Amino acid sequence: MKAAVLEQFGQPLVVQEVPDPVAGGGEVLVEVLATCVLPYAADVFGGVRRYPLETPVVPGLGGVGRVLALGPDATRLRVGDLVWCDPTVRSRDDARTPDITLQGWSSRGEGGLALSRHFHDGSFAERMVVPTENVEPLGDLDADQVVRWAALAVPLVPYGGLLAVGLEAGETLLVSGATGNFGSAAVAVGLAMGAARVVAVGRNTEVLAGLERRFGPRCRSVALTGDAEADTTAMRTATGGGADVVLDLMPPEVGADVVRRAVMSVRPRGRVVLMGGVGMLGGDDLALPYPWIMRNDITVCGQWMGPRTANGRMIALARAGLLDLAHEDVTRFALDAVNDAVAHAAAHGGPFVRTIITPQSAA
Amino acid sequence: MKAAVLEQFGQPLVVQEVPDPVAGGGEVLVEVLATCVLPYAADVFGGVRRYPLETPVVPGLGGVGRVLALGPDATRLRVGDLVWCDPTVRSRDDARTPDITLQGWSSRGEGGLALSRHFHDGSFAERMVVPTENVEPLGDLDADQVVRWAALAVPLVPYGGLLAVGLEAGETLLVSGATGNFGSAAVAVGLAMGAARVVAVGRNTEVLAGLERRFGPRCRSVALTGDAEADTTAMRTATGGGADVVLDLMPPEVGADVVRRAVMSVRPRGRVVLMGGVGMLGGDDLALPYPWIMRNDITVCGQWMGPRTANGRMIALARAGLLDLAHEDVTRFALDAVNDAVAHAAAHGGPFVRTIITPQSAA
Amino acid sequence: MKAAVLEQFGQPLVVQEVPDPVAGGGEVLVEVLATCVLPYAADVFGGVRRYPLETPVVPGLGGVGRVLALGPDATRLRVGDLVWCDPTVRSRDDARTPDITLQGWSSRGEGGLALSRHFHDGSFAERMVVPTENVEPLGDLDADQVVRWAALAVPLVPYGGLLAVGLEAGETLLVSGATGNFGSAAVAVGLAMGAARVVAVGRNTEVLAGLERRFGPRCRSVALTGDAEADTTAMRTATGGGADVVLDLMPPEVGADVVRRAVMSVRPRGRVVLMGGVGMLGGDDLALPYPWIMRNDITVCGQWMGPRTANGRMIALARAGLLDLAHEDVTRFALDAVNDAVAHAAAHGGPFVRTIITPQSAA
Amino acid sequence: MKAAVLEQFGQPLVVQEVPDPVAGGGEVLVEVLATCVLPYAADVFGGVRRYPLETPVVPGLGGVGRVLALGPDATRLRVGDLVWCDPTVRSRDDARTPDITLQGWSSRGEGGLALSRHFHDGSFAERMVVPTENVEPLGDLDADQVVRWAALAVPLVPYGGLLAVGLEAGETLLVSGATGNFGSAAVAVGLAMGAARVVAVGRNTEVLAGLERRFGPRCRSVALTGDAEADTTAMRTATGGGADVVLDLMPPEVGADVVRRAVMSVRPRGRVVLMGGVGMLGGDDLALPYPWIMRNDITVCGQWMGPRTANGRMIALARAGLLDLAHEDVTRFALDAVNDAVAHAAAHGGPFVRTIITPQSAA
Repeated sequence: MKAAVLEQFGQPLVVQEVPDPVAGGGEVLVEVLATCVLPYAADVFGGVRRYPLETPVVPGLGGVGRVLALGPDATRLRVGDLVWCDPTVRSRDDARTPDITLQGWSSRGEGGLALSRHFHDGSFAERMVVPTENVEPLGDLDADQVVRWAALAVPLVPYGGLLAVGLEAGETLLVSGATGNFGSAAVAVGLAMGAARVVAVGRNTEVLAGLERRFGPRCRSVALTGDAEADTTAMRTATGGGADVVLDLMPPEVGADVVRRAVMSVRPRGRVVLMGGVGMLGGDDLALPYPWIMRNDITVCGQWMGPRTANGRMIALARAGLLDLAHEDVTRFALDAVNDAVAHAAAHGGPFVRTIITPQSAA
Repeated sequence: MKAAVLEQFGQPLVVQEVPDPVAGGGEVLVEVLATCVLPYAADVFGGVRRYPLETPVVPGLGGVGRVLALGPDATRLRVGDLVWCDPTVRSRDDARTPDITLQGWSSRGEGGLALSRHFHDGSFAERMVVPTENVEPLGDLDADQVVRWAALAVPLVPYGGLLAVGLEAGETLLVSGATGNFGSAAVAVGLAMGAARVVAVGRNTEVLAGLERRFGPRCRSVALTGDAEADTTAMRTATGGGADVVLDLMPPEVGADVVRRAVMSVRPRGRVVLMGGVGMLGGDDLALPYPWIMRNDITVCGQWMGPRTANGRMIALARAGLLDLAHEDVTRFALDAVNDAVAHAAAHGGPFVRTIITPQSAA
Repeated sequence: MKAAVLEQFGQPLVVQEVPDPVAGGGEVLVEVLATCVLPYAADVFGGVRRYPLETPVVPGLGGVGRVLALGPDATRLRVGDLVWCDPTVRSRDDARTPDITLQGWSSRGEGGLALSRHFHDGSFAERMVVPTENVEPLGDLDADQVVRWAALAVPLVPYGGLLAVGLEAGETLLVSGATGNFGSAAVAVGLAMGAARVVAVGRNTEVLAGLERRFGPRCRSVALTGDAEADTTAMRTATGGGADVVLDLMPPEVGADVVRRAVMSVRPRGRVVLMGGVGMLGGDDLALPYPWIMRNDITVCGQWMGPRTANGRMIALARAGLLDLAHEDVTRFALDAVNDAVAHAAAHGGPFVRTIITPQSAA
Repeated sequence: MKAAVLEQFGQPLVVQEVPDPVAGGGEVLVEVLATCVLPYAADVFGGVRRYPLETPVVPGLGGVGRVLALGPDATRLRVGDLVWCDPTVRSRDDARTPDITLQGWSSRGEGGLALSRHFHDGSFAERMVVPTENVEPLGDLDADQVVRWAALAVPLVPYGGLLAVGLEAGETLLVSGATGNFGSAAVAVGLAMGAARVVAVGRNTEVLAGLERRFGPRCRSVALTGDAEADTTAMRTATGGGADVVLDLMPPEVGADVVRRAVMSVRPRGRVVLMGGVGMLGGDDLALPYPWIMRNDITVCGQWMGPRTANGRMIALARAGLLDLAHEDVTRFALDAVNDAVAHAAAHGGPFVRTIITPQSAA
């Protein structure tokens, strides 16, 4: 089959013929129909993000596919089903603290790296092999939807965090880092989950204004000025006195002090979830006052990707139109144009802009 | 002050001068601005429902008011605040299994009856006394909103049940008994909470069609035919193979076999919540196959009213417009016309039709 | 290898040479060291229980083994590890409502049956193949412990139920059907989880007295008399006015009315979990008063086996001595004596009496 | 009545006649039988802790009493009942984020201070007034038990934290700051809740050895050396590779870096709860690596006191003997000797050593 191979960090991907992947037990063979290229893919492939990805590798973070073959551990799926392929692969021998690899993308720790040697190649290919539990049926979709739904990878990230802190309908959510690809998706997901208000926090006033226009009065924005006190006051006011939930998605280049201010805009008994890249490339730790956490019963938690059940639920939200994929701005590329796709994604990382590779289409 | 008094079951209410109520410690004195008359109020006052309400009593189930006086156990409320008065009064000396009275309406057991002797009179009056924890600030509302929001008593009932079973955004809800006042509110609340689909089940095809029109494609209806097998199949189909959550709100005159069929349309691992009046005036018990419950990890629970935190969250859903009170069909009556209001409510018990008494307005 | 084969229901098991099982992807090959024979095994093999088990089959419900081979989906396990093999196999392609087979024992529905065709053979053999996620490390155990720990299959059943209803330390648990193998284990598990009081309910007064002696003052018993009112009163008294949690484990021959009385001994807001065999071979449905469930916020749920995480937690409880396996009464049999073992188990089904097959020992 | 009054910070308490307190609505009048003097009481009364307590005040943190009078919001309590008085008073007009005062002791924020002006006086008196929801029945206790149970105030603190993070039976708990009065109680409470292992961390090796002796093999200790790497390794080893739950109870004089090391001994997906005094009198913030929190799905939360339901559950644990109060080392003082009691408590702040004032006994 044809696949895009990262032979070395810093080099362009090479589209080439590779051996057809073969699904073993506990695995499903999928024809890849559409896969999303994240805006920071160029940083990953360039080595800037220092991801523990071992080359050569076919990268690519999940996507929409069609089942070609499956094993006896699947009782509902059928060959030919249209499916979502979740890239979050968990080792099966520890229910409490599984090792995790993002197939074709990254991994956590020694165990995750070991796991990534088997579940190695991702979705920038005509076919891929996925663990059975990572395959989620999509039901019928038309050709246009198949392409759009490949972008589910993006909202699934904040959804995992909002599930972790149990955002409930009627609550107020503050999204710190709302102008990026994941952050803007967090705004959409929060509203889909029934948040009464989502406060979008970031620096780009134009993008923030766009979010308010897109989502109407349930979305309010706060433009960060860098003045700590003013920013804190603005967040407190916009949340009506303190958010129920704060979700941080700030990128690696932002300092922990910016996160701290967002965290501390949460109300007493509020919950904070950290999902960003802050500190990943160095910088200060996140410092918070112990007495503030203690006296106010604050919860701060981290979340890396989401639970397995998030896939089906997110698909239901999208099918119901609560999460609106129809109005996203999608540009598609053939597999042969993978490097163009990566460059395009890097240049178009704004809210609801998606770059999709469709490996089955002609160049 | 002026109040409507039920002197004996079966007699009309008498609007008369009564002594002004006085708030003791732990209580708030409220000027009643608007209170909802439930469709079955006539059955309660007529004695048909056999509620453990001791006459003479000023009936009336909570409502919207303005704070006239409060005590030292309140640190946020201010005199003059517009508030929602929750009628679900809990005894304060048992956190685990409190006795409950619905102030001015009903109670549960011996302890609830004892409690109802102190928190006795309800909201069909110019003023009322409410336990401090039952007063929830509403923020600013205009005069029209004050009247509409008195109907919060209705959606709060199904909301309590959906909180009890933890309905999550993206799930499928089946409402058994969806054509009544509470059942149709359950459809609205389920959608406000982000249900991907709500299946409305009832017998009145016209009302069901109205629900579909009102709520669009996320709402589907199933008209019960009385043919057990056909009804079961229809519910299973409409829920896409089994609801995540079933909420039953059938009235006393419906048999337990009808409820059983709705209950058994839930998916494996699904949750069922019973909030209706079935069996209240006699009839068979609810009979379910033990092996079906066991093998399928089914949860069936009951819920009488909701938790105290439901008030604030419901208000947030309404303020955000997720629960739309603006398009409800409201008829208002002066306190002097209380018996007309009761008769009007009985004759207009359909979906989103509300009868409201505004004790401060002239007859 | 050598295995005990059920060729037809109603015939004795035949110990014979069969082909060595081979672990595919997603699977672990295990040397079986010890496996528990349940008291009702004879009923299963005789066809009396009408389990959907397809012959010929090597039966046997999990056990203790040693890892012989594993695949790349395991990052922590090592060849040679001593492990618990959980027989509850779930299909991997539906996170929400997986099909389930009890490997070598039973299954649920069409999908469970399909799954059982692959994960077909159980632990009455020298070796077996288990899905990777069903293998839980035990740490070091001596030879005597290896045998005793095979009986974990028994307490794991009630543990799954008590997890489902969230029994907390300090609560009062009533076990309905406490004199049997599973019921007495439920008493032990409830106490291990920190129940302040466990009320053991059954008919056999001698066994009940033995439970009280074994567990001391935190365990109290109620002997059922068949007089509904007296039994209800006794349960209410022994639980101090109503159990926090009721767990039913009554066998198929007990009527639903007996269960009903135990269920209704729960306190308002209490939780009930059904795990027994009632109704499995016919008989009445479980009938409960709708208004009682509703007004008292009762939760009734079913549970078939437990969550995957239960294995590791139960092992921790046993290692800590909170669940005491050292004082159980264990009789061991070689694999060749499998039919003797089955007969022995049937005749010795009382509390904390275990029949264990050790396939690696000489006859 | 007679009461001990703190007229000014830094002065001894003065035992004097004061007006009898009168219970208003929503309140219970209690005869104080026994109340615990915390080891740091001298620091509070001396002003060292800078608590927002307004003098003159009758201090004292809850205790055991007998009901003298109650109002209509109580349906179960009776005059004469022996009760636990929980000092954590919550404002009643905000269910989501109530203001809190510790009656006779401290408070949080403006609202807590306002609340403390009404629920002002504590238990160093013959009588006190308590909000109805803060009174929990104890059942029958003999005179010796009455004195011992006044010390419930101590284990209730860590219990609140362990409930907040949901410690489950079979888990491993690490207590950071285990040698103090609260920390050692945390060890006892963790074991009462069914922890498989509790790792006690502190600097005092003698006290740590005493904990191991008292609780046996389920309790292991780690003596901090100040060598960060060695301490981290020791905690990781003692917890078997990472605690499920970490509870920090370090006092104000300990630095945030010590807490950080304990926090980071938690396993991936583990939970941490902060309940200590660290930072209260200044010092660094608690600094944690954002990527560590994020990648490992860590939860860090604060907890100030516990939920209202904790009282009844803790009493059940004590009555069942799971929490053993019988072997604590109790010294009692008459109310007239209050300053001796305060001095004694300061000098005897070790594990399971309690100083109790019994206001009804003769000097």
